[in-house]
Parts: sequence; structure tokens; C-alpha cells
Amino acid sequence: GALSQSSTQAVNGVSHRGKVLTLDSMNPNVKRVEYAVRGPIVQRAVQIEKELKEGVKKPFTEVIKANIGDAHAMGQKPITFLRQVLALCSYPELLEDNMFPEDAKKRARRILESCGGHSIGAYSASQGIECIRQDVARYIERRDGGIPSSPDNIYLSTGASDAIVTMLKLLVCGEGRSRTGVMISIPQYPLYSAALADLGAVQISYYLDEDKCWSLDVAELRRALNAARQHCNPRVLCIINPGNPTGQVQSRQCIEDVIRFAKEEHLFLMADEVYQDNVYAEGCKFHSFKKVLFEMGPEYSSTVEMASFHSTSKCYMGECGFRGGYMEVINMDPEVKAQLTKLVSVRLCPPVPGQALLDLVVNPPQPDEPSYTTFMKERTAVLAALAEKARLTEETFNTVPGITCNPVQGAMYTFPRITLPQKAIDKAKEEGQVPDMYYCMRLLEEEGICLVPGSGFGQREGTFHFRMTILPPTEKLKVVLQKIREFHLRFTQEFS
Amino acid sequence: GALSQSSTQAVNGVSHRGKVLTLDSMNPNVKRVEYAVRGPIVQRAVQIEKELKEGVKKPFTEVIKANIGDAHAMGQKPITFLRQVLALCSYPELLEDNMFPEDAKKRARRILESCGGHSIGAYSASQGIECIRQDVARYIERRDGGIPSSPDNIYLSTGASDAIVTMLKLLVCGEGRSRTGVMISIPQYPLYSAALADLGAVQISYYLDEDKCWSLDVAELRRALNAARQHCNPRVLCIINPGNPTGQVQSRQCIEDVIRFAKEEHLFLMADEVYQDNVYAEGCKFHSFKKVLFEMGPEYSSTVEMASFHSTSKCYMGECGFRGGYMEVINMDPEVKAQLTKLVSVRLCPPVPGQALLDLVVNPPQPDEPSYTTFMKERTAVLAALAEKARLTEETFNTVPGITCNPVQGAMYTFPRITLPQKAIDKAKEEGQVPDMYYCMRLLEEEGICLVPGSGFGQREGTFHFRMTILPPTEKLKVVLQKIREFHLRFTQEFS
Ligand SMILES: Cc1ncc(COP(=O)(O)O)c(C=O)c1O
Ligand SMILES: Cc1ncc(COP(=O)(O)O)c(C=O)c1O
Repeated sequence: GALSQSSTQAVNGVSHRGKVLTLDSMNPNVKRVEYAVRGPIVQRAVQIEKELKEGVKKPFTEVIKANIGDAHAMGQKPITFLRQVLALCSYPELLEDNMFPEDAKKRARRILESCGGHSIGAYSASQGIECIRQDVARYIERRDGGIPSSPDNIYLSTGASDAIVTMLKLLVCGEGRSRTGVMISIPQYPLYSAALADLGAVQISYYLDEDKCWSLDVAELRRALNAARQHCNPRVLCIINPGNPTGQVQSRQCIEDVIRFAKEEHLFLMADEVYQDNVYAEGCKFHSFKKVLFEMGPEYSSTVEMASFHSTSKCYMGECGFRGGYMEVINMDPEVKAQLTKLVSVRLCPPVPGQALLDLVVNPPQPDEPSYTTFMKERTAVLAALAEKARLTEETFNTVPGITCNPVQGAMYTFPRITLPQKAIDKAKEEGQVPDMYYCMRLLEEEGICLVPGSGFGQREGTFHFRMTILPPTEKLKVVLQKIREFHLRFTQEFS
Repeated sequence: GALSQSSTQAVNGVSHRGKVLTLDSMNPNVKRVEYAVRGPIVQRAVQIEKELKEGVKKPFTEVIKANIGDAHAMGQKPITFLRQVLALCSYPELLEDNMFPEDAKKRARRILESCGGHSIGAYSASQGIECIRQDVARYIERRDGGIPSSPDNIYLSTGASDAIVTMLKLLVCGEGRSRTGVMISIPQYPLYSAALADLGAVQISYYLDEDKCWSLDVAELRRALNAARQHCNPRVLCIINPGNPTGQVQSRQCIEDVIRFAKEEHLFLMADEVYQDNVYAEGCKFHSFKKVLFEMGPEYSSTVEMASFHSTSKCYMGECGFRGGYMEVINMDPEVKAQLTKLVSVRLCPPVPGQALLDLVVNPPQPDEPSYTTFMKERTAVLAALAEKARLTEETFNTVPGITCNPVQGAMYTFPRITLPQKAIDKAKEEGQVPDMYYCMRLLEEEGICLVPGSGFGQREGTFHFRMTILPPTEKLKVVLQKIREFHLRFTQEFS
């Protein structure tokens, strides 16, 4: 038994001290981190997949993962032009071959020329390859109708995740009541709450208005800010537009109000714009925070500090695995910028294939180039399919009694509200689970559909949601929606 | 002037509050971070390169960067097999083509099959693609003569940098005198000191013995540990073997002593083994910490907690830009492992092209496969050239009065000691620079050679060094060595 074992150890002169690194002796901030998008539901989904492979019988034959915005995993094909250039960059001997179009070769040559030793295997500058940063700046200028952008303000990154965490890290300081507070929306993309927990910063939650299509209301920002001033030092305001998980697209007016608020309240703005091409709804349009800021005149454009983020993972490309991205910083103190440059140099550089991919995204084939037609056809097809699936999702869910679903104006998600019977809520509590986790777990076990419970993103007390991506191919999405419908009715029935 | 400007602002009713984010209000830990490998010397080198392009006349026509272990940037060609498979993974249409060998296609198919939607553009599992982790485990087993390795203990990473920082983050806790202390060698690779500053952990410096070829002495470990116990809680011991910047390769005996010390003193071991293929000196051999640990018997192999790190950036591949790497954790508490898995999931996953590359490194062409001969020829040529350059470097430097250079037994660097005349030291102080920074800056301005001052890695008070990579092609390296020789003599002369 335990006793005799410990006495044996004493005999050997070895006192049992246990592990150096335990749950009790590890970094407490890390323990506080939560990341539902890859949480227990997903772990169980992976397990179920293994069981299916081993021949275990289930009421379904495959697990459909609608838990993460991962387009290729859901069957979306890569854009030909992007991958041709990447193959050329990986194995430049292919430049001698006749199988690739000239514009792909031209792009590859240009990228290789800007790499150390003409190889994507060399480290790049820590801020990112200079000519790619120039291309990013020109892309932003085109996007924003000519408002200037400088490559010096562009930092390439390992996906948007990396840049967001780095920017938050720079901003956090102080202790106790002076600790930096960071405003994030509820519901939010949980990278933000996770990074704040890790950094020991104070999370300030402002609620989006579900009844108004998940829009942002400055009065609610003000309420949250004033409450937070009692216990921390609010310095940062984070916005996700188009929204994850809400699928909402902000109006120009709303963005103006937010910028005015940030200026008045002396807040650093972080604009997460990774879904900037993903706008589907009639009457909605993507407005970049940068463009609105500059259109508000020099009083704003020369004072409000801001960072905006983009990624190769979303939009029409969906190239998540390459971990490409950038941030643009605006009105950042030059001394702080030097510190930022130093900080990113510690990890040497972002992945060069991801940088190369980003270069193609910001500098796609032009009308007079041979790849243009195919590129545009592929791009348009992806975005049109997403728009159709956004519509389909909203429509179907709103026919289910007990599910209410806002329009999916943009991004890749829906965050419908589900009404759960009191008995189901009690049952969940009995099982020691939050109710929407219980709901999603049951859905997974019974239908093989993997969603993320609303509690992973935050929601108003007493309300329940789930997040589903609209990424499965249309026919499969229809099945998913139908299965959720049936499950929801059955579940409601069971607990009535 | 400043006054009238501020009164103008008052007239407009705008009180000038300055920036939200300034040097004073930013994260103080980030300010403490230093990273010399990409510091002021390198920034000046980049500037000089621009000046040369613009036609500014200099006493040289190109800047030779021997400051960073970046093989491809120094002209090393990528290994054909690795790049063929990467091209196939990037653009799977090439699988239909006859231009690639069958084993390259086989590898690419296997990697693609393990990716979501058969695309390297999908996010992978956060810990890394499972079949690649299996290949890593088998590689470690082969390397270590059959000692078992489990894919569950393998975490793929964004270069070794990422895994090292993540592991340190897990380990740091406590405040004041209970704050975690981490033992690192002096000289060290500055990623370590930078990460510790960022995390607010306590750096405990132990000195390597320059007179004994930069070897590690357990008595010195003990001295450093005992001194540190007065003001922090030492919990971690970091080792780099083969050494950067020292080029030293540890003996089996030394590794055993270190492991015994770690066990006695209840320290978590971090073994940075990114140069495991880079061993050149007669009589030297790479011994992995894992293998030695297991050979010491169950008393050690079942108790000592350890993480070891590897990377695609070094060895014969030199594929830095892909940011591939892994760590293996040993005897880690399962609850802590769950926390680690959660933590890495926040950034979603390491770059998939880097994971694919790592898979090829741990699973290279076999003797019966078509790519084997070319692969071995290329690999051997790179390592033989490095061995030759290691010898050449030591030999040449030791002919220069005032430079003493230990043998470059392994890795990719030399860290020779330079004797500086007192007048040079005084001059440097006048200029507000540390003496070896002054020396390296003068060398850069006069000869166009970019090195890193020893102060960036740490050195015993009153001694001066620089770090140089042995990566330039042999003929260029000869020129570099000759130019440093001439500079050193001239510099010594000037201040005598
Ligand atoms: C709003 C938002 N920001 C950032 C990210 C991070 O994406 P990545 O790191 O792949 O660029 C995501 C990913 O889903 C996201 O939804
Ligand atoms: C000792 C050591 N560890 C880790 C690294 C990090 O390498 P990477 O992040 O490219 O894998 C380096 C790079 O030079 C190194 O020398």
C-alpha cells in the first residue's frame, strides 16, 4: 500500500518529493485559460471518430465537425493560383517547367528574390519580408480608397492569433486597481479571453444586442467601461467585425460611434477584421476601421491609436494551416514600435510559406494576367456558396420552435439562441455540466454533430446558444440542419 | 513652439493626453527583453546594405551576415527530397505528373491523408498531426537505441523557439522570493533570457568553463543554485547541447552528472538539442539527454521531468523559414500535460508546411527508395562542409594574436575571446557602448562583416567575445576570417 511504499523510499534514503511541475505549482494564469473551440466537446468528437473507425456501432456513420472555421477540412478546395505559386516557391526547379502559368511563375520569382539566399527556408526579417509588407500596404490603400498605408506599420504574423496576442501583451501593465482592463464583446472569439487570462489582464465584458441582430451599442460600451473603472484601468477596446461567433456586420455609423468613444475614453482600438471578405447580406458592406477613422478627419486619424488584424485563414482562401496574417498599427508611438519589433524578433520570424501566401492574397492575379479568370471563378464560387449557406442556415433554424437565429450577415458562423426546458437545465446541473454543454454533448452522441456550446463564447445569464459554422458543403449542411432540428424537437419533448 | 501648440489645443477644448500606449505605460517586462542576434548591429547592417544599393561608397561591396544561424541565407541549397514533397503537398495536382520520384509522392500522399480535407491548408490538431507525432516518436526510438517514445508526449511547434517559450511559461509561478528561478548557461542563446524577462521569471546564470572548451561543470551549477536560493525558487535547468554560441559538445559523463544534479536538486530539465546532427570534432558524439536518462536506470528514468527540443532550422536541413519543430516531454504530470494541450490550442496549431517538413526529417528516404542516394549525398555534403569550416575557423583564429578560439566541436558557431586594449575599452565607454559592441560596430563599418558582440550572450565580467557563424561558403568564410584578422590587428594597433 501507500504506506509501505513510502517507507521503502525512506529506507533507500530517498524522500518522495513528487513532481517539480504539478497543477499546484504551475503558472496559475495558464490554468485560468479556457478555449472552448477546441475544448471537451471536440476531444470527445475525436474519440468518437476513433471508435467509429474501430467498428463501434453508433446512430451515425461519421462525425460532422461544425465547431471550427476550417474551410478546407470541410471540403473547400484550395484556390489553384495560390497553391501553384507555393509549389513553385517550395521547389523552384518547377520554374523551368511549362506546366505553370506565367503570372504564377512571376509571383514566385519575386517572392524568392526577396528571400535570403532566394529560399523560403531562410529566416525572414522578424517584421516580415519587406516586399510583402509593401504589397500589404498597397492592398490596404486600394481597399480603403487611397488612404495611405506604410509598410513600416505592417507586421506579418503567424496567423492573426499571434499578432492579437502580441499586441495585447504590449498593452498590459500595472497591478491591482491599475491593472490594464481590456474590453471585449460578449459573445466573443475565445482567443481574447484566453490571452487576457494568460496575461493576467482584466477582462471587461460588453454585451452585443441579440435583439438587434447582435449589433454593438455605445451606451453598453459606456456602461461596461464605467463599471470597470472601479477596479481596473481600462485601456483597450477590442472589436470583431464581421463578428465571430455572431455573424454580424457593423454599420458605418456604428464604427464611427465606436471610434468616437475610443477617442473620448482614451482607449487603444484593436480591430479584428479577419472576415473582411465574408459579407453576404443584402445592404451590408465591410467598412474597415482604418478607412472610417481617416474619413472622420485629422482630429481622429492623427490621434486614435489602433491595430487591425487580417489572416490567410478565412475569406475565400481558408488557408488556416499556413498560419499567415498581418497587423497594421496606426498612430503607434515610435518608441513602442521599436519595442514591438524587438519583441517579435525573439521568435525570429513568421513562417515564410504563410508570408508568401499572404503576398498572393494581397496581390492577386490582375485582369490582364493568365490566371485571372480561373482565380475569379474560384473565388466567386466560394463566396457565393457561403452566402447561400448563410441564408439557408438562418431560414432553417427559424422554422424550429425553440431556436431563434439572427441573419448570418457575414463571417462563417451562426449563434442561434436555444430555449431549453427547465427539466433539461436541472438534468444538466445534476450531471455537473452547464446546460448548453449538456445539450451539445447529447447532440454529438446522438447525431454525430460537433458544435460549440454558447457558454464557450459568453452569453447573457440565463440564455443558451450554440455556435455552428456554415462551412459544410451545401448538401451536408442541409443534413446537419435537419438533424439539429430533429434533435432539438426530441430533446425538448424528452424534458417537457 | 510647444507652449503655443498646447494652448491651441486648450482653445479647441481638447486637453492633450498623449498616447494610450507609450514607453512608460507599456508592459514593463517587454521593455526588459533583449535579443542581440537581431539587435542594433543587425539593424545597422540592413541600413548599410540599403546604402550600398543606393550607391554610397564603402570600403567593401557587400555585407556578409555571420550573425545568425541561417544556412539558406548563406547560400546552402535546400535538400531536393524535402522540397519535392513540399511542392507535392502544396499542389497535389503534381502527384499526377511523372517528374517526381515515387517515394516523394508516397510521403506526400501520406501527409495529405492525415490533413483535414486532405489539404495542408486545414488547421491540424493543436498538438500536431497525429501520424507525424508517431513518426517523431519512432525517430527518437531509433536515435536512442530503442528506448520507447510515445506520440502522446510529442508536441509539434512553430520552430523550437515556440516550444521553449511555451514550456517556460508553464513552469513560471510565485512572487517575490518564491518566484520561479531558471538556470541558464552563460554564454547562452538569448531566446532564454528574453523569454525569462518577458515572463518575469528569475534568471540564474551558471558559467561555462572557457578554459575547458566551454564545458559545463556541476560544481558551478551548484554554486549558482545555492546563491539563487537566497532570492528565488529555482525549479528549472536549461541546457543547450551542442552549444550555441559555444560550439561545445557535452560528454556522456557530463550529461549524467547534470541529470543526477537535476534529480538531487528537484529541477525540471530543458534540453535544447536543435543541433543534434551538428557534431564535427574527432571523439565527440551527440548523446541525447533522454537516452542517458534512461540508461541511468528507473530511479532516474521514472522520476526526472524533462522536455527536449528539436527543430527543422538547423542540422543538415537548415529550413528556418518553415518554422518546424517538436518537443518531447518526459515524466510530465498528466494533469499538467492536459493544461499544456489546452494552452497550445489557443493559437490553434503550428504551421502545417513546417509539420510536413518535420515529418520528412524524422522519416527520410530509406536505402531501398529511389531518393535515397541523392538525399544521402546532399546531406553528407552539407555536414562535411560544416566540419571543414569548423576546423578552418578554429585554426585561422588561433593564428591571430589577441584572439583565442576553442575548437568548434559542433553546432554552427564560434565564440572566440578577444583581447581589447585598455584604450579601446576607454574609447567605447566614451561612445557609450560596451567594448565588444564598439568592436563589432567598427568591424561592420570598416569591413562589412556582421557579427554579434559577446555581451549579447553573456560572458564573464572583463572578458570580451564575439559570435560568428561558420555558415558562409568555404571560400567566403576564408575571406571573412582574413578580414577579421586584419581588422583585429589594425584595431589593436590603433589603441596601443
Ligand atoms: C475573429 C477571429 N480572429 C482571429 C482568428 C485567428 O485566426 P488565425 O490565427 O488562423 O489567423 C479567428 C479564427 O477563427 C477568428 O475567428
Ligand atoms: C540553441 C537554439 N535553440 C533554439 C533555436 C530556435 O530555432 P527555431 O525557432 O528556428 O527552431 C535556436 C536558433 O538559432 C538555437 O540556436
